[in-house]
Amino acid sequence: MARTAGSHGPKTMEAIRKAALTLIYRKGYEAITLRQLADAVGIQPGSLYNHVRNKQDILFDLVHDHMTTLLAEVEQAVPAEAPPLVQLEAFIAFHVGYHITRREQVFIANSELRSLEPGNHAAVVALRKRYEGVLIDVLRRGAADGSLRADDPTIAAYAILSMLTGICSWYQPSGRKSADQLVNLHRDLILRGIVVQDPASLAC
Amino acid sequence: MARTAGSHGPKTMEAIRKAALTLIYRKGYEAITLRQLADAVGIQPGSLYNHVRNKQDILFDLVHDHMTTLLAEVEQAVPAEAPPLVQLEAFIAFHVGYHITRREQVFIANSELRSLEPGNHAAVVALRKRYEGVLIDVLRRGAADGSLRADDPTIAAYAILSMLTGICSWYQPSGRKSADQLVNLHRDLILRGIVVQDPASLAC
Repeated sequence: MARTAGSHGPKTMEAIRKAALTLIYRKGYEAITLRQLADAVGIQPGSLYNHVRNKQDILFDLVHDHMTTLLAEVEQAVPAEAPPLVQLEAFIAFHVGYHITRREQVFIANSELRSLEPGNHAAVVALRKRYEGVLIDVLRRGAADGSLRADDPTIAAYAILSMLTGICSWYQPSGRKSADQLVNLHRDLILRGIVVQDPASLAC
Repeated sequence: MARTAGSHGPKTMEAIRKAALTLIYRKGYEAITLRQLADAVGIQPGSLYNHVRNKQDILFDLVHDHMTTLLAEVEQAVPAEAPPLVQLEAFIAFHVGYHITRREQVFIANSELRSLEPGNHAAVVALRKRYEGVLIDVLRRGAADGSLRADDPTIAAYAILSMLTGICSWYQPSGRKSADQLVNLHRDLILRGIVVQDPASLAC
């Protein structure tokens, strides 16, 4: 994405991103115009082109940035040499912590995949697969060493990701549970399940 | 929503709903026009007003219908007098079965809540709370009789609903798992969790 060389370039670009995030979150990508975006930033529509080429560039920038930051941070958060169970707990804590404060980004990264042009769509889906792959690998290694029960590591990973990302749809920082408490509640549910009695007594 | 008394009324209305579902799913509610909708149905824009008052009515009709059918069916699916664990298993199977073939409805019911006018929004949120309440009640009774481990039944219910509804975002009827297999995989994960070793050995 083109950026101006002037001193206000990065600052304006940041304002554009922030305004685009809010506008797309509220109205959807297809419904917004570059004119509305310029108005929201407080610049002339023509000036917008000093920073971005078109509307598609802005959407791609938002989603791509969300995914690349996510990927860079998960590598830091999940200890490479730890046992699968420890990695799983680290992944859960990381995923919740990263997403819980990024409600708008999460919503757009999910609901506006439809609006990405084919090349951009493929790039984002590839990043997403890499991120899902981190969890799938953990579950696969846990199944292999007998510590985790994952008959289908891919589907179990999707299930865990959906559960954890779902927090974003209702979480309020002012709510009755802290982020740490939510991590613990979800970790326990994922690790131990919800049934109290002996698992052997359940129909399988 | 007004419907024509003529013999083609219900049939046309059904075509309008179907076209609206697809259009909103692809482009988002804000971006579509009644003209595009009429074109998709193959009728004159003016004729649309024989069936619907405005765009908001159509969105509300789609989401409201999805939720009321869901509520009517869950009451049939979850046996009222059964133990909480049996009810939970029935709920899981019902929720997956109902949603898995309604990808577009699920997406719109989640992503276009933002586009409902206040009165419509409140009506849909109330239906949604009633549906969530069915699962919360099951978990609460399971926690009370000691069969289920739900420190926070509301959050556990949200977590389970997010996990199960997430299937819609990737499920393909032609995929490698049948709907029944998916029900079983998710039921096992929710009931028993993913850790193989003795739950008592986990840090809590």
